Amino acid sequence: MHPAADQLNQRLSGTVVRRMLSRLGEQMFFPRGIVAQAAEAAAQADRFDATVGMAYSQGEPIMLNSIREAVPGIPPKQSVGYSPTPGNARLRQRWKEEMIRKNPRLEGAATSLPMVTPGLTNGLCHTADLFCDPGDVLILPDMYWGNYNLLFGVRHGVQIVTYPFFDRSGGFNTDGLREAISQHSGPRGVRVLLNFPNNPTGYAPSTAEAAAILQVLVGAADHTDIMLICDDAYFGLFYDDDIETESMFSLAAAAHPNLLTVKIDGATKEDYVWGFRIGFITIAAAGLEADHFAAWDDKLTGSIRSNVSNGNTLGQSLLLQAMNQPDYHQEKQRIASELRHRYQIVRDIVSREPYSQPDFPLQPMPFNSGYFMAFRCTNGRAEEIRTRLLSKGIGVIAFGDHLVRVAYAGVDPESLPELYAIIASVARETME
Amino acid sequence: MHPAADQLNQRLSGTVVRRMLSRLGEQMFFPRGIVAQAAEAAAQADRFDATVGMAYSQGEPIMLNSIREAVPGIPPKQSVGYSPTPGNARLRQRWKEEMIRKNPRLEGAATSLPMVTPGLTNGLCHTADLFCDPGDVLILPDMYWGNYNLLFGVRHGVQIVTYPFFDRSGGFNTDGLREAISQHSGPRGVRVLLNFPNNPTGYAPSTAEAAAILQVLVGAADHTDIMLICDDAYFGLFYDDDIETESMFSLAAAAHPNLLTVKIDGATKEDYVWGFRIGFITIAAAGLEADHFAAWDDKLTGSIRSNVSNGNTLGQSLLLQAMNQPDYHQEKQRIASELRHRYQIVRDIVSREPYSQPDFPLQPMPFNSGYFMAFRCTNGRAEEIRTRLLSKGIGVIAFGDHLVRVAYAGVDPESLPELYAIIASVARETME
Repeated sequence: MHPAADQLNQRLSGTVVRRMLSRLGEQMFFPRGIVAQAAEAAAQADRFDATVGMAYSQGEPIMLNSIREAVPGIPPKQSVGYSPTPGNARLRQRWKEEMIRKNPRLEGAATSLPMVTPGLTNGLCHTADLFCDPGDVLILPDMYWGNYNLLFGVRHGVQIVTYPFFDRSGGFNTDGLREAISQHSGPRGVRVLLNFPNNPTGYAPSTAEAAAILQVLVGAADHTDIMLICDDAYFGLFYDDDIETESMFSLAAAAHPNLLTVKIDGATKEDYVWGFRIGFITIAAAGLEADHFAAWDDKLTGSIRSNVSNGNTLGQSLLLQAMNQPDYHQEKQRIASELRHRYQIVRDIVSREPYSQPDFPLQPMPFNSGYFMAFRCTNGRAEEIRTRLLSKGIGVIAFGDHLVRVAYAGVDPESLPELYAIIASVARETME
Repeated sequence: MHPAADQLNQRLSGTVVRRMLSRLGEQMFFPRGIVAQAAEAAAQADRFDATVGMAYSQGEPIMLNSIREAVPGIPPKQSVGYSPTPGNARLRQRWKEEMIRKNPRLEGAATSLPMVTPGLTNGLCHTADLFCDPGDVLILPDMYWGNYNLLFGVRHGVQIVTYPFFDRSGGFNTDGLREAISQHSGPRGVRVLLNFPNNPTGYAPSTAEAAAILQVLVGAADHTDIMLICDDAYFGLFYDDDIETESMFSLAAAAHPNLLTVKIDGATKEDYVWGFRIGFITIAAAGLEADHFAAWDDKLTGSIRSNVSNGNTLGQSLLLQAMNQPDYHQEKQRIASELRHRYQIVRDIVSREPYSQPDFPLQPMPFNSGYFMAFRCTNGRAEEIRTRLLSKGIGVIAFGDHLVRVAYAGVDPESLPELYAIIASVARETME
């Protein structure tokens, strides 16, 4: 092991972060190499900076004209220049401010400074790199984003264990989560991922359910190390009353010294910049102090450096600029209202015939948030329904044989009745 | 192993690609999930596309106003929309055309279609993911980019073996490469990385040296599987006559069925868009056919999907637009001439006193290309020279105790004499 990695491990000694590191996580560090020396030069080399592999002319990066003209308001360093490995420092600070504004319980809580990753997937991947060894168990509800299989299962050799998402009353199945945790806690603790609003169901827990989930996690933490990964991709789009509007990260951040919570969030869905690829990783656990976070930052920075070097600069600059507009919150509220309007239309449609009939092959599952809703396909012909719809010019997603996901956020409100009428007619064809 | 991965392995059976896969490479595949279904919908769902997690209004992605206004000429789908996992299809095609234009020997050669990765580092990382198991040997010259240690060594557990970069006459040490290969070929073959123009030295081989390197590789391929990774980050900036102006990828692409060549290149340095994070991976080996490349594409797409999902869209759109400008080549030539001018100034400075004195502590090493030149620091005080320069407002990079790298491409030509005068005066201080 490199001495620098060993030092970081010692600084993390006694914490849940240290105990849950993977073998790669133990060995990771951020070397004092080109990037660190260039950072020193950026601060001190006021005459000539001949450190970094960028071409400059008269103090500005050289740029192709057509690119300069395409982003007229952005200075060259903020469009084509390199970003620091952990991301634009002002954006990280700004994202943290927003995180606290959106999650008031975090006010005063000790968390790491959000670090930028190129998209939320990459944030999940670094989390798995640093915390998941082959054979470690990851507990998921049985309805989850398919890419977890490839990322955790194939790439990291993690064993995915599921419990039924909904209980009999159609609420979040807290008992199922508790049982899965108690059955699968091992010498390396246990890892749990919660994705609210959930993809594919579009479900987020009520305040009572969120409190119950926290109780389960804290109860387990008395007996085992536990990591909660919060995939908050769709955070903020809550359409019903009584939904918990703060992230589980916010509830769990200071809950227990054996409970490590990792928040994966980003601008992708929250700020409607899907292709910008801007995600963030933030961690918290009761008892973590500034030097623990500094040591963690070094490990995560090394992980980023050795995988992608750094994130794209132009996207970070544009996002920061957008977040600093005076009407930023107002504009986001306007879009959220528009999506809520679509939700209400869909809610109304699926509460009526034919979707309300108990023998209809597409049964809407509970949904209250995010971009999606999903049908349970009771006759097991989800893929057939998908391909039949495709031949009529309509795209939906089939998850296996028993689930059809509809991204209603992608369809204009006036078209939603027609869309769901066609889905119903195709579903009826599969009853024959 | 997932049946889909097994099928890909069978399609690659008998090829050097199959034989050199890592354990992760064997298990990787691209699942028929959301992304594949969404791609079908993009082609066929002309009424309503409710597949992907993007919010649309009237057929266009919803956007924050300040972002729309910052990139006025780019349609929303090309700025905030998702890119396909393997990258913008037109950009991939365009990059391949340019690759052939820059490397005429590739005309008609069978290669994969370049696949987009968020930066060249990420391209190297996927190459290591898919081809390097812990304990595999990677052969490097003794002067190389420090991040290879973190990426190949720490992240992938690869054993890095080096040979002296230069031979006694100051040319590329082909004999050293040959010996390293013959000593380190094992049951899993041998992996070689060449980075021309080299970071940190700024050296690229002559045509004769490149031909000799190819002979070494082909000679070895008679006895072992061999992978050549070409890190072509600084490709194209060749300042002297008699430099081989094509990539080693171009020379090796069809050279031997046991020689797998992987080209890692990108717009980062070649097109002066460092912060855009756009790299490409392209592979070739004699005898590979269309279905082999298709199977490989599936593995690489899965690797990208499980690590970063996809690359940033706006950067790809802006790069494609720039590459399609009528004056694209002319503008790049103008910038290259500017950098060549800086090279000639530096060349002239370091050929004169004090740098020409054999007892001067900074001895310029051969350089002829790229962004950099490097000094061998004969008194072992490279770090001291770096920090002394920093206190005078000048940033350079120290590699260990014996090498100082100067990124002269980052300094205006009229300032180069002053820069090198200060470096000389600081070096003189360390003689005392």
